[in-house]
Amino acid sequence: MTLRPLKSYLVTPGPTPVPDDVRSAMAAPAIHHRTPEFSEVLGRVRERLRAVFETGQEVLTLAASGTGAMEAAVSNCFSPGDAVVCVNGGKFGERWVEIARAYGLDVVELVVEWGRAVDPGEVERALRARPEVRGVLMQASETSTTVLHPVEPIARLTRDRDTLLVVDGITAVGVTELPMDRWGIDVLISGSQKAFMLPPGLAFIALSERAWRAAATARCPRYYFDLRRERESAAKGSTAYTPAISLVMGLDRALERMLAEGLPALFARQEVLARATRAAVEALGLERLAREAPSPAVTGFFAPPAVPGGALQRYLRDALGVEVAGGQGRLKGKLLRLAHLGFIGPFDVVTGVAAVEMGLARFGADVALGRGVGAAQRVLADALPPAPA
Amino acid sequence: MTLRPLKSYLVTPGPTPVPDDVRSAMAAPAIHHRTPEFSEVLGRVRERLRAVFETGQEVLTLAASGTGAMEAAVSNCFSPGDAVVCVNGGKFGERWVEIARAYGLDVVELVVEWGRAVDPGEVERALRARPEVRGVLMQASETSTTVLHPVEPIARLTRDRDTLLVVDGITAVGVTELPMDRWGIDVLISGSQKAFMLPPGLAFIALSERAWRAAATARCPRYYFDLRRERESAAKGSTAYTPAISLVMGLDRALERMLAEGLPALFARQEVLARATRAAVEALGLERLAREAPSPAVTGFFAPPAVPGGALQRYLRDALGVEVAGGQGRLKGKLLRLAHLGFIGPFDVVTGVAAVEMGLARFGADVALGRGVGAAQRVLADALPPAPA
Repeated sequence: MTLRPLKSYLVTPGPTPVPDDVRSAMAAPAIHHRTPEFSEVLGRVRERLRAVFETGQEVLTLAASGTGAMEAAVSNCFSPGDAVVCVNGGKFGERWVEIARAYGLDVVELVVEWGRAVDPGEVERALRARPEVRGVLMQASETSTTVLHPVEPIARLTRDRDTLLVVDGITAVGVTELPMDRWGIDVLISGSQKAFMLPPGLAFIALSERAWRAAATARCPRYYFDLRRERESAAKGSTAYTPAISLVMGLDRALERMLAEGLPALFARQEVLARATRAAVEALGLERLAREAPSPAVTGFFAPPAVPGGALQRYLRDALGVEVAGGQGRLKGKLLRLAHLGFIGPFDVVTGVAAVEMGLARFGADVALGRGVGAAQRVLADALPPAPA
Repeated sequence: MTLRPLKSYLVTPGPTPVPDDVRSAMAAPAIHHRTPEFSEVLGRVRERLRAVFETGQEVLTLAASGTGAMEAAVSNCFSPGDAVVCVNGGKFGERWVEIARAYGLDVVELVVEWGRAVDPGEVERALRARPEVRGVLMQASETSTTVLHPVEPIARLTRDRDTLLVVDGITAVGVTELPMDRWGIDVLISGSQKAFMLPPGLAFIALSERAWRAAATARCPRYYFDLRRERESAAKGSTAYTPAISLVMGLDRALERMLAEGLPALFARQEVLARATRAAVEALGLERLAREAPSPAVTGFFAPPAVPGGALQRYLRDALGVEVAGGQGRLKGKLLRLAHLGFIGPFDVVTGVAAVEMGLARFGADVALGRGVGAAQRVLADALPPAPA
């Protein structure tokens, strides 16, 4: 007999699984968006997003993927010819470079080796060398290389300069500490299909006071992503254009879940899941990427030399129903990534690791089945409540 | 930090998890049951149930739990004073005794040690000693002791006698081979919350030709469970009383899944999952119940002497979100049971075993985390398709 997948598991850094109550909220009867009912939902969502972003600013919800909010950050805060530093240490760092160039910005590219975090000293040198730099554009968690970049030390550099810090927190907001106001982040971005436990389709963006001042004079063309218009609409309990209604209904419920757990507990849980996954990878003797600054959202590792990573990834999906992420860009076919953010829980970590072990075994790798799982279990078990006396 | 359950897992022998498409089918808009639409669904369900029961007879669907169908079997096939042999090797064997006595039958109780399968030789001796015995009532899979009883050899004894073989296949139909017509089973029963991947609420029952003849003259009182009336209604594409409409809608979809996989593949999958679970329990050095005749639906084992089974079971539920079954009747607080039927798949087995390991560790037991999981993985991996060349 041949086992076929009975269920599907998403262990990818977006989309992530969607909880049942969020799915139910999205499946509620359609309501119109220009109604008191929807305004009430939107009001609650705005309030809760502020809590998750840890900001007193408006957090705008756009019907777009995260890339849309990245573009909005560039087009609203800068003008053609403005110099910006782009931290480019992966596929999403590259995206900052591409967007900035598309709008005619003068890009100072700070290339970081894939798998390493940016050195804040490098950013400081770049800012000193080019005092006219108007912005630093970076990822908090660079999903493609599974690296966590040091946002706080860089914020200390930008907040005393006339330089905006624009942070793509798409796989970081709601995963790890990223307090916008406290750290002095000027633009913070996230997306629905990550810690927010929703399908893709919503992007979130918040601007600091000085970012809003920049938006008032920025000369990049924009219309759909004109955040001034969105802010005006938000103040009236509405949106500038048709919102993605069902996703916003689900967001309302998802934010309720996140805040009921509380950010400190949520961050601590993410850290445990990340440590469990890393322990599993280490126990299996697999080479980890991003050893020095691993993202709490996703863990990257290389398939053993004899096993083709892309074929292994497809095998896990087709034979086991377990969708793990492969490498992106230059890491395609080499890297595997196990995500542990959003609605991915302890037993999804166990499932992901168990699947990788079984896949490796079927590809002829020398793997002790259960060794990685056991290492993950030890981390998880240590975080469980004590047994009753 | 303390990990709290993020998701819930049902690894119990009923209720079992319900697939998404079945849930969607049950959530379809309500339709009335006296309509061509519902008759069409019912017609399809009847046809498909015949395929799963492997019978040419009508398989009746009752709005009841499995116990209702057990009662229907007794009240429709026998008369007060009739002698019947009840194979009593667990809680559900006891139930046959109780129902038969409630209807005034003369019960020959064939007590079997809990954890052992009935010896067909014992049944033969009982039938020889009391040639007037009108029926043998037994379980195929005795869920409380995780034993698989030998139905076929017993059917060989009853089919040449004027004795009906009444089989509770509640956790066996759709799990393991139980071909009603081929083996000569006279009454076969199942329930929705087992292999049928539905919530509880439906019971299924099919009668052989000679069981129907017995039903024509049986003098036990019955009304709601009068199967003659149900059969007449079924022939007209209807039901005698109001059917559990949404469950029947879900059943239609669930049966489609079962038959699309095919019974041989389904049974083979169940066997792999059962072997994986047993291998895990053995690897952990835990004492299994039903070693000689284990059920393919559920595996029973004892908590180590120092660990209270009931408290461990509650801990797995409360601290890990994993619902495993405990012992029933005299095994309460001692036995643990991991189910592997219905919509419980390979990674639910992994999850169940991993949870038991972590729970045992928290209760101070000497357990090598990952050892049981690894043993299960070896069985599962062997059943996977080969890796691409």
